[in-house]
Amino acid sequence: MAANGLAMKQRRLTPKGRATRDRIVAVAAQLMFEHGVAGTSLGDVQKAAGVGASQLYHYFGDKQALIRAVIAYRTEAVLGTVRPQLGRLDSLEALRAWRDLLVDTQRHRHCEGGCPLGSLVAELAEDFPECRADLAGGFDQWEAAIRDGLEAMYHRGDLRRKADPGRLAVALLAAVEGGSLLTQLHRDTAPLETALDEVLDRIEDLRPRRAQSRQ
Amino acid sequence: MAANGLAMKQRRLTPKGRATRDRIVAVAAQLMFEHGVAGTSLGDVQKAAGVGASQLYHYFGDKQALIRAVIAYRTEAVLGTVRPQLGRLDSLEALRAWRDLLVDTQRHRHCEGGCPLGSLVAELAEDFPECRADLAGGFDQWEAAIRDGLEAMYHRGDLRRKADPGRLAVALLAAVEGGSLLTQLHRDTAPLETALDEVLDRIEDLRPRRAQSRQ
Repeated sequence: MAANGLAMKQRRLTPKGRATRDRIVAVAAQLMFEHGVAGTSLGDVQKAAGVGASQLYHYFGDKQALIRAVIAYRTEAVLGTVRPQLGRLDSLEALRAWRDLLVDTQRHRHCEGGCPLGSLVAELAEDFPECRADLAGGFDQWEAAIRDGLEAMYHRGDLRRKADPGRLAVALLAAVEGGSLLTQLHRDTAPLETALDEVLDRIEDLRPRRAQSRQ
Repeated sequence: MAANGLAMKQRRLTPKGRATRDRIVAVAAQLMFEHGVAGTSLGDVQKAAGVGASQLYHYFGDKQALIRAVIAYRTEAVLGTVRPQLGRLDSLEALRAWRDLLVDTQRHRHCEGGCPLGSLVAELAEDFPECRADLAGGFDQWEAAIRDGLEAMYHRGDLRRKADPGRLAVALLAAVEGGSLLTQLHRDTAPLETALDEVLDRIEDLRPRRAQSRQ
């Protein structure tokens, strides 16, 4: 397995080597976010990271290996938005806080670049099957984290029997991706806010009637 | 205005010239859909369309002009899904038929390539401001067509006062885009179906109670 091979190689790196490798990945991720994967050459990455061609080859072998490292890096970053520091997404309050975090992140970036993970899909999915598989795996983990919280709400009785946590998780993730694309296009966070809020309002409407009347 | 200049030039083309130009655009759109914009050279387009470099230059001047023609072509195609043959999207039946059309189209393409208009965004939005403006204009028209049908439902009393047609239109468009991206990633129409159905179910829940109890 290539992924296992990579993991084994990473374990063999010295702390300094590890730091260099991480820096190259972060620099490459930023360049690919700004100029696309095709618009980022290995020469660009070398220059921006201040490393030589032989170092780049030592850590990654070829461009596809570097792209896959960038996908792993971006996957970690999006999973960071659905992890402990925010608590599980298992209440409407937590879901709305997550929504605010996503919107603030876009605002911070002046709505440029779209979703750092999703924007890689259009460019890589068709011509790089291994990258598509990596991206699908990243999105699967993201979806699972969202579903996990909704399932907790469901089993606790905070969602009606007819609610389907798995379907709502897909709808939320699609709202993140489609909303981010429209936000990038219009340089305005409003579409992302609206897309997420409409799905969150649906989730709110799926609470048991007693919970709704309590408000 | 560049767009007006282009329109004027198109009016001056002979029917044969017009046909050649249209063929080049269709070929370029397909290549860019399959391999991305950066992955499609003018040489690739010449070869696939069977035209020479001077012909390509005659019709488009440079690659950006060709890309903008492809955006206009893709915009026409997506607007074709929300036009007369399906009727306005002014009933749940019409909205569900439109949803089926989008899903069937993806199935037909084996879930490859994502949304033909949206997949251009990630690659063009940051480095080509004019292309971003064209894409934003295309999406604006698409959104307006969706909103138009929802507003007709609203004014007819088929949606409750608290429903907001403009917000629902954005949520539907985001579901199309995010759902198409997940469908491309997973090579499965299920995410697109789920994303659209969750928003359509929300719209259904926003009908007046008398309409819901009639079922």
